[in-house]
Amino acid sequence: MAKRIGQYTLELEHNPSLISWAAVGGKIEGEGPLADEFDQLENDTTMGQETWEKAESLLQKDAIHLALHKGKLSTNDLQYIFAGDLLNQCISSTYGLRDLNIPFIGLYGACSTMAESLSVASLFVEGGFAKKTAAVTSSHFCSAERQFRFPLEYGGQRPPTSQWTATASGAVVVGEETTNGPYVRAITIGKIKDMGITDANNMGAAMAPAAADTLKYYFQDTGTTPADYDLIATGDLGAVGSELFIQLLGEIGPQVESRHKDCGLILYDRAKQSQVDAGGSGCGCSAAVLCARILPSIYRGEINHVLFMATGALMSPTSVQQGESIPGIAHLLYISSKKRRK
Amino acid sequence: MAKRIGQYTLELEHNPSLISWAAVGGKIEGEGPLADEFDQLENDTTMGQETWEKAESLLQKDAIHLALHKGKLSTNDLQYIFAGDLLNQCISSTYGLRDLNIPFIGLYGACSTMAESLSVASLFVEGGFAKKTAAVTSSHFCSAERQFRFPLEYGGQRPPTSQWTATASGAVVVGEETTNGPYVRAITIGKIKDMGITDANNMGAAMAPAAADTLKYYFQDTGTTPADYDLIATGDLGAVGSELFIQLLGEIGPQVESRHKDCGLILYDRAKQSQVDAGGSGCGCSAAVLCARILPSIYRGEINHVLFMATGALMSPTSVQQGESIPGIAHLLYISSKKRRK
Repeated sequence: MAKRIGQYTLELEHNPSLISWAAVGGKIEGEGPLADEFDQLENDTTMGQETWEKAESLLQKDAIHLALHKGKLSTNDLQYIFAGDLLNQCISSTYGLRDLNIPFIGLYGACSTMAESLSVASLFVEGGFAKKTAAVTSSHFCSAERQFRFPLEYGGQRPPTSQWTATASGAVVVGEETTNGPYVRAITIGKIKDMGITDANNMGAAMAPAAADTLKYYFQDTGTTPADYDLIATGDLGAVGSELFIQLLGEIGPQVESRHKDCGLILYDRAKQSQVDAGGSGCGCSAAVLCARILPSIYRGEINHVLFMATGALMSPTSVQQGESIPGIAHLLYISSKKRRK
Repeated sequence: MAKRIGQYTLELEHNPSLISWAAVGGKIEGEGPLADEFDQLENDTTMGQETWEKAESLLQKDAIHLALHKGKLSTNDLQYIFAGDLLNQCISSTYGLRDLNIPFIGLYGACSTMAESLSVASLFVEGGFAKKTAAVTSSHFCSAERQFRFPLEYGGQRPPTSQWTATASGAVVVGEETTNGPYVRAITIGKIKDMGITDANNMGAAMAPAAADTLKYYFQDTGTTPADYDLIATGDLGAVGSELFIQLLGEIGPQVESRHKDCGLILYDRAKQSQVDAGGSGCGCSAAVLCARILPSIYRGEINHVLFMATGALMSPTSVQQGESIPGIAHLLYISSKKRRK
């Protein structure tokens, strides 16, 4: 049985396997550093649909079907699917997945949703509630811009602290098989942290305190140090939030920094893709980076011990208009090429 | 360990206890049949806040604090909190619970969210991931109207199939204690069902197929019949959806009908409160009815075997404007005054 260690961390006994995964991206994502690592890239980000919302639903549908296909699985093999996105009432997920006929658990954690859904999907396998589950999240630049900021046609200016919502989706199938990794070995679910940031164009800063909090407790709970991991991947703090995150970690900051990469900075090349400003964001950003780059690297044995910690800014346009500050959250999974020794 | 029975049902071994609960309601709810059963009623539905969104957050905060207080517990006793609501980006939950410092898992299942969050909260206890968890959801008539339909000031007409979003919240603490019930004995997570209903003023009809589907599979999986239960509570199909639900059940329809009550019809007296049209709805409706009426009735032994099945309509104003149909979902918990015999 999963064991609670320290205050907030679950050490998994069965180490659920990440059996297969897929990443789907849009045009800008296909011009970035992960171009060759995506399973599918769309040149036309409407994907032949009438609306961006429908296109985003299709991103999510394609990601799950590709992940199943790569694992030689069908929808019948999944006992539960965990999904979420940024759109109001999470319609990318519900419309994207409505034809699958799989028991559906919708989650909302803003850009942390991939870590949140993968955590719960893994725990359902760990607890014996399912043999196989899947986690999938998405975001779409155009649907997010018009919902959270301005319609693209308005041509609003973006300050340099802005992040670029990724047009992407990632899907992961989790199972009880023990033949091959990567394996989920520990999970720390984060707490909501609100440090009073009110600038909706600087979400990295709003999420950094939550990321620092979750990571500090993870190290404290497990008695491990940054040196025990090959990669500490946050998503998506961007350039501004990443710097703040390292500062907030205090003493262990420099140790973390040498192993830290932010999914929002992996997905794009800021020097060549200046439109992304401080880096990528969105439920699809960390999901796609996880599925396109991180999991394949673990599978091939290039890296063995990874902390994947997606972060979310839990505000809405309404709460921002009402002068509220922006609460952040960060959930962490320890994903490894090796199972825990019993 | 929880055992999968049939296609979609989990039979719980440890039968997590529902330790304490609380229901908070607004003015209209206080004029209805459950007036004496709420733990707290607000005459002023702004609750002294500047905005309805902030008032809704406070409903949720009050519900969880009351539930903890009634169980002689503090926030430190909870290892996880599962929460959701109807507002864009689920801000009632994130703002309402941000000060609690409890690991937070946000869920979105529209009006099914109480069944969804209570299911996952119970499974976290069943799986040994936590000693105690809590599930809380809310809705607010005024915040929902302006987000989903029209601002109240507009004075829009409502067709008679409309349902009235409850101003209410319910919170339940789940624990591994075995001293007292009610106990969660089985869970069936629903699949998304979309039968092509496009009328956003007739959500009961959109959700009825999902409710019928989940209930049919539950009976098939468990080999039980409606006669094995004292109450089959749906939430929130309202008057129109309830009739359709019974029809869709076919042969077992009449048997279910004699035990069926809809939370949207329990919360209000439609004869006296004609403004509610076809009945109540919203994440807070089934949550409040569960906490004000159903759980106390089980605790006092007045009823012993209850199926609590909350239903959700998974659309958004955007998807409706884009001509999409309305997908529905329904999740079921079997809650009993008795633990399962081993």
